[in-house]
Amino acid sequence: MVKVGIVGGTGYTGVELLRLLAAHADVEVVTITSRAECGRRVDDLFPNLRGHYDLAFSEPDVGLLAACDVVFFATPHNVAMNLVPELLAAGARVIDLSADYRIRDAALWSRWYGESHASPGLLAEAVYGLPELNREKIAAARLVACPGCYPTSVQLGFMPLLARGLVDPQHLIASSASGVSGAGRQAKIDNLLSEVSGSFKAYGVSGHRHLPEIEQGLSDIAQGKVEVTFVPHLLPIVRGIHSTLFARLSDTSVDLQALYEEWYKDEPFVDVLPAGVFPQTRTVKGANRCQVSVAVPQERNTVVVMATIDNLVKGASGQAVQNMNIMLGLDERAGLQQVGLLP
Amino acid sequence: MVKVGIVGGTGYTGVELLRLLAAHADVEVVTITSRAECGRRVDDLFPNLRGHYDLAFSEPDVGLLAACDVVFFATPHNVAMNLVPELLAAGARVIDLSADYRIRDAALWSRWYGESHASPGLLAEAVYGLPELNREKIAAARLVACPGCYPTSVQLGFMPLLARGLVDPQHLIASSASGVSGAGRQAKIDNLLSEVSGSFKAYGVSGHRHLPEIEQGLSDIAQGKVEVTFVPHLLPIVRGIHSTLFARLSDTSVDLQALYEEWYKDEPFVDVLPAGVFPQTRTVKGANRCQVSVAVPQERNTVVVMATIDNLVKGASGQAVQNMNIMLGLDERAGLQQVGLLP
Amino acid sequence: MVKVGIVGGTGYTGVELLRLLAAHADVEVVTITSRAECGRRVDDLFPNLRGHYDLAFSEPDVGLLAACDVVFFATPHNVAMNLVPELLAAGARVIDLSADYRIRDAALWSRWYGESHASPGLLAEAVYGLPELNREKIAAARLVACPGCYPTSVQLGFMPLLARGLVDPQHLIASSASGVSGAGRQAKIDNLLSEVSGSFKAYGVSGHRHLPEIEQGLSDIAQGKVEVTFVPHLLPIVRGIHSTLFARLSDTSVDLQALYEEWYKDEPFVDVLPAGVFPQTRTVKGANRCQVSVAVPQERNTVVVMATIDNLVKGASGQAVQNMNIMLGLDERAGLQQVGLLP
Amino acid sequence: MVKVGIVGGTGYTGVELLRLLAAHADVEVVTITSRAECGRRVDDLFPNLRGHYDLAFSEPDVGLLAACDVVFFATPHNVAMNLVPELLAAGARVIDLSADYRIRDAALWSRWYGESHASPGLLAEAVYGLPELNREKIAAARLVACPGCYPTSVQLGFMPLLARGLVDPQHLIASSASGVSGAGRQAKIDNLLSEVSGSFKAYGVSGHRHLPEIEQGLSDIAQGKVEVTFVPHLLPIVRGIHSTLFARLSDTSVDLQALYEEWYKDEPFVDVLPAGVFPQTRTVKGANRCQVSVAVPQERNTVVVMATIDNLVKGASGQAVQNMNIMLGLDERAGLQQVGLLP
Repeated sequence: MVKVGIVGGTGYTGVELLRLLAAHADVEVVTITSRAECGRRVDDLFPNLRGHYDLAFSEPDVGLLAACDVVFFATPHNVAMNLVPELLAAGARVIDLSADYRIRDAALWSRWYGESHASPGLLAEAVYGLPELNREKIAAARLVACPGCYPTSVQLGFMPLLARGLVDPQHLIASSASGVSGAGRQAKIDNLLSEVSGSFKAYGVSGHRHLPEIEQGLSDIAQGKVEVTFVPHLLPIVRGIHSTLFARLSDTSVDLQALYEEWYKDEPFVDVLPAGVFPQTRTVKGANRCQVSVAVPQERNTVVVMATIDNLVKGASGQAVQNMNIMLGLDERAGLQQVGLLP
Repeated sequence: MVKVGIVGGTGYTGVELLRLLAAHADVEVVTITSRAECGRRVDDLFPNLRGHYDLAFSEPDVGLLAACDVVFFATPHNVAMNLVPELLAAGARVIDLSADYRIRDAALWSRWYGESHASPGLLAEAVYGLPELNREKIAAARLVACPGCYPTSVQLGFMPLLARGLVDPQHLIASSASGVSGAGRQAKIDNLLSEVSGSFKAYGVSGHRHLPEIEQGLSDIAQGKVEVTFVPHLLPIVRGIHSTLFARLSDTSVDLQALYEEWYKDEPFVDVLPAGVFPQTRTVKGANRCQVSVAVPQERNTVVVMATIDNLVKGASGQAVQNMNIMLGLDERAGLQQVGLLP
Repeated sequence: MVKVGIVGGTGYTGVELLRLLAAHADVEVVTITSRAECGRRVDDLFPNLRGHYDLAFSEPDVGLLAACDVVFFATPHNVAMNLVPELLAAGARVIDLSADYRIRDAALWSRWYGESHASPGLLAEAVYGLPELNREKIAAARLVACPGCYPTSVQLGFMPLLARGLVDPQHLIASSASGVSGAGRQAKIDNLLSEVSGSFKAYGVSGHRHLPEIEQGLSDIAQGKVEVTFVPHLLPIVRGIHSTLFARLSDTSVDLQALYEEWYKDEPFVDVLPAGVFPQTRTVKGANRCQVSVAVPQERNTVVVMATIDNLVKGASGQAVQNMNIMLGLDERAGLQQVGLLP
Repeated sequence: MVKVGIVGGTGYTGVELLRLLAAHADVEVVTITSRAECGRRVDDLFPNLRGHYDLAFSEPDVGLLAACDVVFFATPHNVAMNLVPELLAAGARVIDLSADYRIRDAALWSRWYGESHASPGLLAEAVYGLPELNREKIAAARLVACPGCYPTSVQLGFMPLLARGLVDPQHLIASSASGVSGAGRQAKIDNLLSEVSGSFKAYGVSGHRHLPEIEQGLSDIAQGKVEVTFVPHLLPIVRGIHSTLFARLSDTSVDLQALYEEWYKDEPFVDVLPAGVFPQTRTVKGANRCQVSVAVPQERNTVVVMATIDNLVKGASGQAVQNMNIMLGLDERAGLQQVGLLP
């Protein structure tokens, strides 16, 4: 039985980890921490978990966490980077769902997150946890940095085109839209139902924190410099990311449908839809899955890729469990076989 | 391996049956019928099922269906009552999710459904598939009539009060609200997002088809005549039923919280919430679960019960699978352990 | 030109007052206060107002407010009761949208609001601003206490039945549902889209602050003691209240449809729907209107009344403007002729 | 008093025309036609109109329509092109909200609409009713073709850039999203709340009927050939269009904020937001207004423009009324001063 610890379990990625791990036959959650909710039963905060866990939130205890086979950080940024060094030193393996270890360049991280990094020495070691790109490195990693939700969809969408060098990498466009749960379980007027429901808007147009992560990841894939115009939008839904990607084709002779199908044919969690079928966020809701379509409208030279994920699953907690499975040599699909909830 | 057939799989209860059965280790779906979609792959209509089923819709074939261990009808009313006699004669066991066999009195059924019943001779044999009331009869049944979604919530909510004779059974009130999926996957202007979203209304106030079913069920429980004022409302959500029940207490000395906890303590799918905690439809979304609370506001003599279910799960397909498990002697919880999707 | 001041304009009732008053030909808003947003342009906070107001939030200035013909308080409770005495003394007339002056009994107010009342001496003078009940008193009032949103719908719904003595006043039931804007523009996790969207729940079952207001108002109408079991619910919509009211008829011989139509035939903002038509919150969205239906299901002796309003209009700011029109001798409908926004 | 006739009043643009015209002091609606709903009161179908109109749907009567000062067609495509010739011959002036006269090239129209045009001889005369482009021609027109909802937002967004020749016109990108009301009041499974709610998807990626209209309009503005990759998306909201536009700057030295503010400074219904503020569909809900922002993320050479409208107002019925005001020499803003409904 794999022993799991979760640091910071009161947010949406925390409850989602618990939902997924409840279906994972090989895993036992032994501790879940929260300073604010210390002592409160997990299923009192999240009544969907009643009957599935007999667990209360506790203060973080390094000894207890270090005794786990793997520790998830489901915290806001700026928590993991302070605690992880100690846990690694104590022998733990860590999967960080926050942004702390996603960007390899500490200065770049500081510019976007507005503070200096607390453990820059670990940035080189941390493996970027996109299994479709780094599966082998993940298997051997002590510290995995789970990708952001937008970056997951954008990288999986652009990957075959960039890896094969079929598009102009300097002028990529990503018009993405996310459900509100991506903003976390925090008391903010901007995310009230009364502010968001029945509306749609772009935000962070001049620069969103996921931009440097996206450009780093796409540059790794393209093995060269990539520039993206990234415009995130807020959807009046709870779960789901839809990225609509545009690029100028440098070669229009390739059968892109065949390329995508071939590229992802062995990936358990990337599903290339048939030609002419476009993804919907609802068909991946609750599932650890990215559904992708590719099209070249009017047979011109602009390619359009659409990629959808559930931001809390393939965009966060599901991908984290997938990484855990890889790290621990389990079946990569264990605990992740849920069918999307439709309708 | 249990062989399952599904008649009429293109609606929401059909796709939900498939979602649940995909997680049921002992079951294989061997045929799913639809005249309108004959030949179309199931996962083309419902892309959330991609990778989970390699199945296409087919014309109903009595031989093939009769060879199944159990046949589900996920059809509108008026289909099962014509086909079931033949299937039973051929040796099948049937679980009908439609209304055809819910009401024992054929004349009453005809009054509410506007046509005569095609197989009234089976009404006496059909077992009303509310496991919390009829578990033993279900185990032995050839034909189970799954309760309607509203009736499930209303009966589970009132059951302890009526069985113990604590309320006036002649003046019960059920103010219920349902998500739009309860209206099925049918092209109707009334259920367009533009007509329903951001709004709330009562409907069927003068008489809803679930009223006679509710009164029949509650009379069985109370072992006497029951009258209910039942007002259904339409919620601008996809899944979920919330019933708010009111009754005049004839005895105010009973600890109702203790009564409810005791009554349901061995039921795997009825969850009595702690005193002062009220159910939300979102905490049972996707789960085969009824969450119930009881309160006596201001310590007067009107009791209020709140009961929530996912209308497609405990209100339809999940309850159907629960009935199948009971009929076949499987673990009643098999395939039904999904954690509710929150948020 | 009527000079209007608004105290506390950063909430939803504030922006709604501004929307309605922009359409009122006789009114000029001369000052709108907010300590938190002092100096910020109103249309920066609420971009729907761009081009309609050239106004910034300012610190409250008693002199400036007192010079207005009427001052609205669009504040949380506990603000008006501290400031109003001074304003009245300075000659202003006040319309309070908060709860401070709604309940005549200071001790009762304290019990429900958890603090002592700051100006109990004004409670006797304050007129309860339900025009359909108190039109003449409102016309002469210095201080009008606008009804709460739930109480408006419940009182207008029960009024003809209670005034005519047709129902048992001791066991009334109000099962009401409100959009989230009723909770105000406040940073609370409970009202995030991710917490509320796609869900429905009851709350405040053991006792909601609107209960004593409802019982006071209904007792005035019935001219005798009234007891109500009041269960509010939270709808995943922005605007709208729907109250479903139940009562035991003491006389079943009255034509209730005719009674309601007659009762409200001269009321500009109460619309009795034809028999068999039930109200929807969407048909009153943005309009100062209460739509009401009455029915006696199955011709038994329980009457059901449905009443809908937009909680921000007839349930708050629209009713406040209606009161202003009455107080100032303007056409009661001035500024309130907007057609509901459908779809 | 201007006499107005409406052909086809049972859809969303029909009820929206009625809502707006109810606030227009100079207009009287004398006839509204519908074959399907002939004889039914308008306010029975649309209860938000109760008290505002005493009107029933009637069969189209050319004589009655021709006697109107202006006739609106709020019909699906393929209706106006058959009836308009007769009306024009009888002396009427026509404002067509459908697609019949938007595209000047009859062959191109046929290719996208799948049938031949019934009155191609009028295509040259029909004025494209985008006031910001064609105000003077509209004033003199007998026949105005109101722009589609997507095209309105895309053209107003790109106009200053294209008119000034600042971007590459061959590779424009429009990633647009619309509320479901854009699909009309038609019984289609695809637009059920259960199919759309809580989800987001692209559609018509390979070619949407608004593409040729957009390219024609933008070519007029650019006075040269324009090519657009246009990807529409479906939002789970009722009203609102948000277009996110991308173009390659050929000149990065221009102050685009100043350009946009200057370009639209005299337009009553185009509102350029301050730098750094981005539009939301909710701030234009119910208002005849396009809110626009322009940004150059990371100071690279890709410009991003965001433009929002209410698809039923500035994208349809409001723009139609604006055209009517221009044609009849009324104040262009008459009947169109509604403040957006926020929240």
